[in-house]
Amino acid sequence: MKIACTACDYSAALDRAVHPCPSCGEPVELHYDPGEIDPAAAIAGQGRQQGILSDLSPVLPPFAPTERVSLGEGGTPLVHLSRLGRRLGLPNLFLKYEGANPTGSFKDRGTAVALTQAVRTGYTLAGTVSSGNMAASVAAYAARAGLECHIMVPAHLRPEKVFTIAVYGPKLYRVEGDYSELYRKALALGRERGIFFAVSDEPFRVEGQKTTGYEVVRDLARLGLAPTHVFNPTSAGGHTAGLLKGFEEMAEYRAIATKPAVVAVQAAGCSPIATAFARGETRITRVEHPATEAHAIQNPFPPSGNRVLRALARAGRGAATAVTDEAMRRAQLALAHGEGLFVQMESAASLAAVEEWRGAGRLGPSDVVVLIASGSGLKNPGAFAPSDFPVADVRLDDLRWAIK
Amino acid sequence: MKIACTACDYSAALDRAVHPCPSCGEPVELHYDPGEIDPAAAIAGQGRQQGILSDLSPVLPPFAPTERVSLGEGGTPLVHLSRLGRRLGLPNLFLKYEGANPTGSFKDRGTAVALTQAVRTGYTLAGTVSSGNMAASVAAYAARAGLECHIMVPAHLRPEKVFTIAVYGPKLYRVEGDYSELYRKALALGRERGIFFAVSDEPFRVEGQKTTGYEVVRDLARLGLAPTHVFNPTSAGGHTAGLLKGFEEMAEYRAIATKPAVVAVQAAGCSPIATAFARGETRITRVEHPATEAHAIQNPFPPSGNRVLRALARAGRGAATAVTDEAMRRAQLALAHGEGLFVQMESAASLAAVEEWRGAGRLGPSDVVVLIASGSGLKNPGAFAPSDFPVADVRLDDLRWAIK
Repeated sequence: MKIACTACDYSAALDRAVHPCPSCGEPVELHYDPGEIDPAAAIAGQGRQQGILSDLSPVLPPFAPTERVSLGEGGTPLVHLSRLGRRLGLPNLFLKYEGANPTGSFKDRGTAVALTQAVRTGYTLAGTVSSGNMAASVAAYAARAGLECHIMVPAHLRPEKVFTIAVYGPKLYRVEGDYSELYRKALALGRERGIFFAVSDEPFRVEGQKTTGYEVVRDLARLGLAPTHVFNPTSAGGHTAGLLKGFEEMAEYRAIATKPAVVAVQAAGCSPIATAFARGETRITRVEHPATEAHAIQNPFPPSGNRVLRALARAGRGAATAVTDEAMRRAQLALAHGEGLFVQMESAASLAAVEEWRGAGRLGPSDVVVLIASGSGLKNPGAFAPSDFPVADVRLDDLRWAIK
Repeated sequence: MKIACTACDYSAALDRAVHPCPSCGEPVELHYDPGEIDPAAAIAGQGRQQGILSDLSPVLPPFAPTERVSLGEGGTPLVHLSRLGRRLGLPNLFLKYEGANPTGSFKDRGTAVALTQAVRTGYTLAGTVSSGNMAASVAAYAARAGLECHIMVPAHLRPEKVFTIAVYGPKLYRVEGDYSELYRKALALGRERGIFFAVSDEPFRVEGQKTTGYEVVRDLARLGLAPTHVFNPTSAGGHTAGLLKGFEEMAEYRAIATKPAVVAVQAAGCSPIATAFARGETRITRVEHPATEAHAIQNPFPPSGNRVLRALARAGRGAATAVTDEAMRRAQLALAHGEGLFVQMESAASLAAVEEWRGAGRLGPSDVVVLIASGSGLKNPGAFAPSDFPVADVRLDDLRWAIK
């Protein structure tokens, strides 16, 4: 097991916290030697609901049970979208509801692995740079682990989101300035001060994020199915990179016959990865003027952008695509009204993309399609105005007449 | 299997929707004939993360898999509170985090069972009376089942909570008037109009709520432990009644050696059950002037109040107790800061009660204590003001000096 660059031939021993690649600046990842992981055992596991560090230990670094920093993350519901699937002519349409994680988003998977590594290598300080979901997740797991925590959020973060992070007691900084510059400066500062920055593509975090893919395969196998397509909302690229890494491992170890196509879904108003993919380019270009309300997937210069492009090219299938804010909002309400699932607007990007692909004939009735819904709708209390929904005001005595 | 009154000797066949008891007005419940359930099998199950209707089917009514109305509820994390436990001298202190359910609260367990029964008995209309958590849950599962949904909420419900219910597309009524009167009127209207009201102590809902207790026993058994005390925030009494029913079943079928003591925790400003319990009374008295911010457990005349008192008397141990709003808020922050768990203020009532009991010597180091945390902290976006938490505003260039 070692740290290896995802782009060049740099590698390093695991006892050093290296990220990104000191040689080329691209993300590094964990590289297992043959036999160090067992994807088939992970997929065959039952999921004992004790958190991914226990349930999916065959494909994670060998942490001792006592070292685990866990809040019971993972094991999220895979919900069959029978009604929406019927409407779309996709009888095998599923949604992986990541809002059921301890802090309400997929980030908890990566945070559990990253902060376990932080603790076992002696860190006492942790932190991250995030516009919301990751900040809450790292603050929560740092509290769980007893680490002092430094969280940097963008200056424009909505006040009503601040308490969802601050409640865990981290030191919280609202930083005015360029977001991707902040990412780099924070990592440099972390190396200098001994702060473990569990950012989006920190290699141990990505190990945690790959578990979503393992669970999708495991959960579908129980139904006698295998995924053909996995749609994932994509911002910095860490989760999508993790999914792709997981499917590569499963195929390499012959735990699955065919890798599903992974589709990275971005917001049309900020889609550096989808734009580069459409142009056949191998490197992303910074988006100068992001124009989207989907802040959770609004990263103008995603640190794992090039890496996702490389992984998609290597996979030979899959894609990066973009959807409008309007399509996301429509999909968000379709999921709530049609299936009883309230997800973040950004999470609904997956469904919006599937609708588009189905309309264009890129998906058919025999496909087994999985939407990754990255977070709970409760994450964005300010997303709706009272006027968005009709409410009847009734006096108790008039109840009989009010209900028709 | 039949419907039986929890107070008098009334019983009825299952094909009729009867609730409450037409003879004495007290709650009815599902009564299984010997051998119709298998508690030991439920406890031995692995929890395949496919929802309680599948995972805990040995102790639920025999629904066909195709009839199930599920969003993957249950299977929530049981988190060992090692740090708080050390501080309290309770090495075996655990928290069952019900915020990880699909709509963010324990209510989803009961709603899944209740609406499955509604659909299989031919209802096309569903509804409930709720101040928040249950309303969101019933609206979500009704959307999932394709039922038209009528939700009645109190007139004072905070506007920022409305969208967490309205997003699922129910018909929503803010009703001005007495809340317990509304409960009775809604049930009468339901019988008249064919609306399945999945209220707090509807007998099939209570079957769902008992699954929390089964999971607690199952999850602790894997660690070689058995619960001695289960603390549960109590409002209308349906969840507490379900827990008590589950433990009674487990003991009756010898699936557990000893029943844990169930402690119903109320808000000091509205504690009809705790007050009656302290006075040794067998019936609750209506609280005329509720004075608590803990709205999720503020029921001045809980419909299952007398029933909980009867079940506690029958159990011979356990209790009802009350804690102040201030103690709840302190416990809420202690859970977030100390363990990384952000729960509703009302959920933290469990910890507040344990602190009190420990201080009074009513709990000792050998006890295995479980706190039921009923819902996610994200449920109450208005619970905190920006001034509650310090945030540093920093320019990117000053980052180095800001972080100490």
